[in-house]
Amino acid sequence: MTHFPAIIMDEQRRARTGVEEAVLCEQKTVDQIGDIIRMSQAENIRRLYTRLSFEKFDAIPAPQRDLLRYRRDACIAVQGEVADIPGPPQTAIVSGGSSDAPVALEVQETLAFHGHSSLLIQDVGVAGLWRLLERVKDIAAMPVVIAVAGMDAALPTVLSGLIPSIVIGVPSSTGYGAARGGETALNAMLASCSPGLTVTNIDNGYGAACAAMRALNMLNNTPATAAKLDKIRITNQETAY
Amino acid sequence: MTHFPAIIMDEQRRARTGVEEAVLCEQKTVDQIGDIIRMSQAENIRRLYTRLSFEKFDAIPAPQRDLLRYRRDACIAVQGEVADIPGPPQTAIVSGGSSDAPVALEVQETLAFHGHSSLLIQDVGVAGLWRLLERVKDIAAMPVVIAVAGMDAALPTVLSGLIPSIVIGVPSSTGYGAARGGETALNAMLASCSPGLTVTNIDNGYGAACAAMRALNMLNNTPATAAKLDKIRITNQETAY
Amino acid sequence: MTHFPAIIMDEQRRARTGVEEAVLCEQKTVDQIGDIIRMSQAENIRRLYTRLSFEKFDAIPAPQRDLLRYRRDACIAVQGEVADIPGPPQTAIVSGGSSDAPVALEVQETLAFHGHSSLLIQDVGVAGLWRLLERVKDIAAMPVVIAVAGMDAALPTVLSGLIPSIVIGVPSSTGYGAARGGETALNAMLASCSPGLTVTNIDNGYGAACAAMRALNMLNNTPATAAKLDKIRITNQETAY
Amino acid sequence: MTHFPAIIMDEQRRARTGVEEAVLCEQKTVDQIGDIIRMSQAENIRRLYTRLSFEKFDAIPAPQRDLLRYRRDACIAVQGEVADIPGPPQTAIVSGGSSDAPVALEVQETLAFHGHSSLLIQDVGVAGLWRLLERVKDIAAMPVVIAVAGMDAALPTVLSGLIPSIVIGVPSSTGYGAARGGETALNAMLASCSPGLTVTNIDNGYGAACAAMRALNMLNNTPATAAKLDKIRITNQETAY
Amino acid sequence: MTHFPAIIMDEQRRARTGVEEAVLCEQKTVDQIGDIIRMSQAENIRRLYTRLSFEKFDAIPAPQRDLLRYRRDACIAVQGEVADIPGPPQTAIVSGGSSDAPVALEVQETLAFHGHSSLLIQDVGVAGLWRLLERVKDIAAMPVVIAVAGMDAALPTVLSGLIPSIVIGVPSSTGYGAARGGETALNAMLASCSPGLTVTNIDNGYGAACAAMRALNMLNNTPATAAKLDKIRITNQETAY
Amino acid sequence: MTHFPAIIMDEQRRARTGVEEAVLCEQKTVDQIGDIIRMSQAENIRRLYTRLSFEKFDAIPAPQRDLLRYRRDACIAVQGEVADIPGPPQTAIVSGGSSDAPVALEVQETLAFHGHSSLLIQDVGVAGLWRLLERVKDIAAMPVVIAVAGMDAALPTVLSGLIPSIVIGVPSSTGYGAARGGETALNAMLASCSPGLTVTNIDNGYGAACAAMRALNMLNNTPATAAKLDKIRITNQETAY
Amino acid sequence: MTHFPAIIMDEQRRARTGVEEAVLCEQKTVDQIGDIIRMSQAENIRRLYTRLSFEKFDAIPAPQRDLLRYRRDACIAVQGEVADIPGPPQTAIVSGGSSDAPVALEVQETLAFHGHSSLLIQDVGVAGLWRLLERVKDIAAMPVVIAVAGMDAALPTVLSGLIPSIVIGVPSSTGYGAARGGETALNAMLASCSPGLTVTNIDNGYGAACAAMRALNMLNNTPATAAKLDKIRITNQETAY
Amino acid sequence: MTHFPAIIMDEQRRARTGVEEAVLCEQKTVDQIGDIIRMSQAENIRRLYTRLSFEKFDAIPAPQRDLLRYRRDACIAVQGEVADIPGPPQTAIVSGGSSDAPVALEVQETLAFHGHSSLLIQDVGVAGLWRLLERVKDIAAMPVVIAVAGMDAALPTVLSGLIPSIVIGVPSSTGYGAARGGETALNAMLASCSPGLTVTNIDNGYGAACAAMRALNMLNNTPATAAKLDKIRITNQETAY
Repeated sequence: MTHFPAIIMDEQRRARTGVEEAVLCEQKTVDQIGDIIRMSQAENIRRLYTRLSFEKFDAIPAPQRDLLRYRRDACIAVQGEVADIPGPPQTAIVSGGSSDAPVALEVQETLAFHGHSSLLIQDVGVAGLWRLLERVKDIAAMPVVIAVAGMDAALPTVLSGLIPSIVIGVPSSTGYGAARGGETALNAMLASCSPGLTVTNIDNGYGAACAAMRALNMLNNTPATAAKLDKIRITNQETAY
Repeated sequence: MTHFPAIIMDEQRRARTGVEEAVLCEQKTVDQIGDIIRMSQAENIRRLYTRLSFEKFDAIPAPQRDLLRYRRDACIAVQGEVADIPGPPQTAIVSGGSSDAPVALEVQETLAFHGHSSLLIQDVGVAGLWRLLERVKDIAAMPVVIAVAGMDAALPTVLSGLIPSIVIGVPSSTGYGAARGGETALNAMLASCSPGLTVTNIDNGYGAACAAMRALNMLNNTPATAAKLDKIRITNQETAY
Repeated sequence: MTHFPAIIMDEQRRARTGVEEAVLCEQKTVDQIGDIIRMSQAENIRRLYTRLSFEKFDAIPAPQRDLLRYRRDACIAVQGEVADIPGPPQTAIVSGGSSDAPVALEVQETLAFHGHSSLLIQDVGVAGLWRLLERVKDIAAMPVVIAVAGMDAALPTVLSGLIPSIVIGVPSSTGYGAARGGETALNAMLASCSPGLTVTNIDNGYGAACAAMRALNMLNNTPATAAKLDKIRITNQETAY
Repeated sequence: MTHFPAIIMDEQRRARTGVEEAVLCEQKTVDQIGDIIRMSQAENIRRLYTRLSFEKFDAIPAPQRDLLRYRRDACIAVQGEVADIPGPPQTAIVSGGSSDAPVALEVQETLAFHGHSSLLIQDVGVAGLWRLLERVKDIAAMPVVIAVAGMDAALPTVLSGLIPSIVIGVPSSTGYGAARGGETALNAMLASCSPGLTVTNIDNGYGAACAAMRALNMLNNTPATAAKLDKIRITNQETAY
Repeated sequence: MTHFPAIIMDEQRRARTGVEEAVLCEQKTVDQIGDIIRMSQAENIRRLYTRLSFEKFDAIPAPQRDLLRYRRDACIAVQGEVADIPGPPQTAIVSGGSSDAPVALEVQETLAFHGHSSLLIQDVGVAGLWRLLERVKDIAAMPVVIAVAGMDAALPTVLSGLIPSIVIGVPSSTGYGAARGGETALNAMLASCSPGLTVTNIDNGYGAACAAMRALNMLNNTPATAAKLDKIRITNQETAY
Repeated sequence: MTHFPAIIMDEQRRARTGVEEAVLCEQKTVDQIGDIIRMSQAENIRRLYTRLSFEKFDAIPAPQRDLLRYRRDACIAVQGEVADIPGPPQTAIVSGGSSDAPVALEVQETLAFHGHSSLLIQDVGVAGLWRLLERVKDIAAMPVVIAVAGMDAALPTVLSGLIPSIVIGVPSSTGYGAARGGETALNAMLASCSPGLTVTNIDNGYGAACAAMRALNMLNNTPATAAKLDKIRITNQETAY
Repeated sequence: MTHFPAIIMDEQRRARTGVEEAVLCEQKTVDQIGDIIRMSQAENIRRLYTRLSFEKFDAIPAPQRDLLRYRRDACIAVQGEVADIPGPPQTAIVSGGSSDAPVALEVQETLAFHGHSSLLIQDVGVAGLWRLLERVKDIAAMPVVIAVAGMDAALPTVLSGLIPSIVIGVPSSTGYGAARGGETALNAMLASCSPGLTVTNIDNGYGAACAAMRALNMLNNTPATAAKLDKIRITNQETAY
Repeated sequence: MTHFPAIIMDEQRRARTGVEEAVLCEQKTVDQIGDIIRMSQAENIRRLYTRLSFEKFDAIPAPQRDLLRYRRDACIAVQGEVADIPGPPQTAIVSGGSSDAPVALEVQETLAFHGHSSLLIQDVGVAGLWRLLERVKDIAAMPVVIAVAGMDAALPTVLSGLIPSIVIGVPSSTGYGAARGGETALNAMLASCSPGLTVTNIDNGYGAACAAMRALNMLNNTPATAAKLDKIRITNQETAY
């Protein structure tokens, strides 16, 4: 019988960096995803699955599939308990149009998986500037702001010029032709004349949420931060090479 | 003796299209440019020279060079008289930053060469949104608006979302890295979510001015327009192929 | 129950810019599109839907789908009444070949949705120059000309060299290999040696129509234009940030 | 006399966003730069000049040039006083090789200009992994880490996988051929499998420093942060459009 | 009846170069693949088929399909006997994540088809550096190492900086957005600051295995090597052109 | 009823240029293709259809579909009689591998449609140089040679260095990864160090055949050539614009 | 003493292919070029030097430089006698604008070096269509036409649609921005809807002339052609490998 | 006084990997290079400097410059003794044309610096196939072959199809236009249909030599290889993080 080599998840990552590894499902087969679900269940590990398409989700065998809470509008799934989220949000998620919703929701779900609430403000693209200006005060109240935008991606530039928060831009693949699947949005954010904007990969809501959590961990002085110098010892004598 | 083949200028173009052909100097040699100046002088033709670098201008022999009025801050030159410009401006030229000045000035000089005045508003990039908002009323009063911007080029998107004018975007090569010599600005304008924005080549102030003049000729119902159906007869029997 | 956040349409846009916002369906889900139809019906709003594929249209639930008039040859749909179009056309739509038809028809439908008639001339690509030359006189009679072309996109260059009208080039994704999905057509139009040609995104018939309408609004001095300075006040004291 | 339109600096930016606008000298002429120095002197404004080449610096007239403190190894200049920097550093600047020095130093000088000290660790590229591992403990002690790397840019990936800090990657243009002037480093950082890494434009040390300062302002709860909601009121009734 | 021209396989290749030609199925039709299987059966030739998708494999007529041993997790098939592999492995195959498995397995199967065993180590991407460091000793014991990695592809750089073996990098198409289907991994490997790393095409596990076998043939002084000067005589008098 | 505007075929093209216009089916709908078949039947016009996929061909209504002779291995179809081809071939079609067959066959069918026979030599890629060398004598006997090759496309370079014939290179989209859908083959042919090689678009067998026929028409002094000066008169007084 | 390895010129090429190898000077050092001139002088060989910049030409030591006839307007040089050119031209060289002159002249000089006269028609770009139409009759009289054009490169498309000759397009690097150094012209020619147009590398006048001469050799049945089967024997028994 | 941070050379690299780190001078300043020379002299370390341009070399202060042996035809320099090279060569360096000489010589010098002799065969590009075929026997006698080629880079494909040696391709930046500074050569090598060819970065002669030496170290079972498992211990308890 041909069977797949065991998949090694990187369970030490949260201890070292403060964020959990997610399972990027895009290039994995249904068999691989099913294996990970089963192993996680056996070891009682919570797990986040990103870029899990409808087709793949529906093809997972029912015993494993039923262990997931799947959000069809964001192609994201959670395995295991989701704790109540305490306290008011510290992160605003702002997006340009309704086509950006899957990315914005990937941010929101990733934050929620790690216990962070967020404020979601959609459809405020700058082609209709008045929509953004009505919400700037709410946005500026958050120490971390994630701005999702496709096409020309002018939103993060305008927004980061108005507020002092940490601003993370997420280019989305919305648009066609010269939008080039998100490359134009990506380049526009990188070339932005508004200083202090940093950027993630196209459609990478998960990565933006992780960056936000690094900042929140520093801001909140979480135990993960306090303990970091002891926990991230890489090698001991036995395993040193 | 090796001598260069005579250069054939396209003198019929204004009659047909309403705009004069300019001499694009970028890939021409100093010898070629000098020849054009001399021939134009001999035939008493006004002429506009674009993208004429300092080095080339200084290398033109004095008898020809003295026939040019050269604008060093825009690498543009005019040969022949420039008439007084009557009436108030119908075109606004808006730019994001002072590095865009050469392009904005190429627009202005091209319009002036053809007898059109313009309103020039610089340094209103949307990273500092308040600078633009203070001038929107003046801009919206013009039927034609040319917006020059580099880097992320968010300016034309924001502007065209606010006003009903004809808006022509000119991406500039300002910026570095992901700005890619103006390609990002170009793509951002093309992918703009603000409908009805059209775009020219990178740094092509001359082309944007020509597009503006096509619109103004239509708006003003100039003689060129009225007479166009008669003038643009391409072939007559003798020259027909 | 998971439900999608409400979609905020930008209803103020026509008041400010003279053109209606369209619903770009390409990256929206069927659920999102259905929601927009239902909300528009509830609020009695006319709506234009672009890039709506056969598959998505057929998947819309019948109650909503029946509210649309869908044009299968252009992947475009209209919700609500279409008024009779008064007067002769002021816009020519010219295309290179029959593969460009969907784009040319998107232009035509967008104009019609806003109450503008147009003259449609297809299959006049310059590889068979005689086809174009027989129609130049009709084309030159229009103040605004939209030229749709793919592959090498030589049509707008040749055409704009012959006529004084406002000429807007729309590169189409027709072709294969070095046509690169419309990029070559786009670049050829941008680099055109025919001055005063402006360009939209690849396949963006909607955008070209909006640009045409900006020009027509200026030419026709429509009420939207006359009233623009009062209507586009962005902020008042209460909503200012 | 032809004279250049006055340059409008955006003096309100620090009040709104917590970071000063810098003068990007790359596409400005020597005349423009000289004008800015003179105006800043007249108005007693401190100023940071980035990407100011040797040639341009040497061409600035002496009265203006003498007002600058120029750092030749980073093509950066400061006009005005630099205050003493209090307290220990909160930011680590880590770079792969000595060719990355100009970018790393642009980060350091930008931070210093705004009153932030930093810890600079160079030449720890991961091709010689032992060099980095010896310094990880020092790096992890900082809440903000800026990692500068060219070529394959593996450094930020390895580093952000080891520490919980905020990590900002700056791709440098070091390398040749497939390094493509920094594009490969940029894409490698964006595509990094290490979650929570955000990225700036190629060689954009200034931007990374600004992003770091946004985070430090949030961490330190600086007055700029506390007062932000009042200061960033965009419009008042008089200037509202 | 339309029938396909006979396909000419290059049976002399192993004699000359030491490696067998494989059948690259990606752009071949099912009919072509079926013809090759039948002809190979008729002539009793062993054959390796790469990039043979599920759909194509399932569409091959049963008589031919049953002659293949197909590995679904690597889209690779073998026709004919596979001999026992003698001796310990001389090649390590190292990959960054489980999404790289198909490429890593293509390497392994190609080596096995030619009679070489290998050591397969998966899921040791450098975002979790400890995973690699625990296995470096095993990897360094092999004279040839093939490192498969996608996204930012930092693995081969880190690895080749640690060991003296021949290191061949195989960029994989794992990732999305800025990963650009493997181009970023490819460029990162080419631009690596770790000297002596060579690279194959994206996802080209077969090619990497062939390169490894060229090295092993040299190392092991196989008969193919000893006899090479006699066997690879290209032309004799009769067939000379 | 919505009906499609009539498609205007360019029936004058053969008279002017010596080659027939083909129907490029790739971006046409099944409805459009069916219309062209019906119109051609009505007007008794022979017609060549290229890049007609299986799916589209099968979807054409039977009455029209039955009028086509379809070649499934080349996605090409002929409507109307095919005359016997007199005389020996003057064109060699040479290809690198069996994956290039569809392109090579498109060349062959296009030539046959116009009455030219050809010599087809497949599977002679230069990775197995002996295969080509055995056939060079046959190839060199033809005045026109069309070389189809994908991947690295070394075949046309090697071949054109050996023979004096007219050599036309057709890059094919065979390969993956760095082959970039034929772009690498295209660029390699364009950059070839073998002088006098000209190139067509990727996979453009039709275009290469047309170029060959232009040459053959000149070589054979066909009636089309003799009569060309009279036939290609573009305009007469009535239709002149 | 360090001395350069002898340069091996490929003197057999004309015998085999009918065209002489030229010396491409672009990436050669002045020392290398001087060596080639001296060796050619010693062996009494005529030689063509292309892409020889002013700077390099002027830096060649006088004894060698004086052996060249240099054409400064085309960066081309000839060493040795140039025979009188008998008979009327068979090749037309057509270019779009005066910036294309260096490429057009490289074509002309290469033809002349091999003993072919040509008809040079410049400045007939299709933005002013009337200029081309006046000359079509002269152009169509030539069996071979070389069309040089930059920017959007519409000239070869329009021209090849009008005439039955062999048409070879040479994209030039004229233009800026979206012209991309000739890539847009190249792609536009490759994607041309005018069938039977073949293309050379950007600015490759030499290559286009060589392709023209291959055609002329076939047309004129020159001795080189007649003798080709005997002359191009690659190997004999002694040198066979 | 502003002084540059000390440059940390990676002196442990040879112990771990068997190859010395070279100083890549391209993006270093003359000051940095001078510092490295001085420090190396002080510590009595031999050093290789690559991509050291004429201008930079001439600008190094004489005391440091005199410590270098500079090879102007390869932009490479050596500091320190070069030992006699024992034994016959094991590596062939093969290049397509004389423009590739600087890269081929960088390979040769790097090998010599490490004590390896080599066989250099230049000017055997496959456009003149006979030149290569005469030398194949000599090339095939070497266990390692480095093939340098630009433009279409067909040489490595043809060569690796003929011989069983380890073949490393080095794309060179020779050529213009579609050669794209070596990218076409790079892609052609990567997409080669000749299996087992691996590739380095464009113009990276140093890297190819290092790869060759990794193979030679394995073949020759050098002390470095034998001792590798003990020497490359990365961390000990004291420095472990």
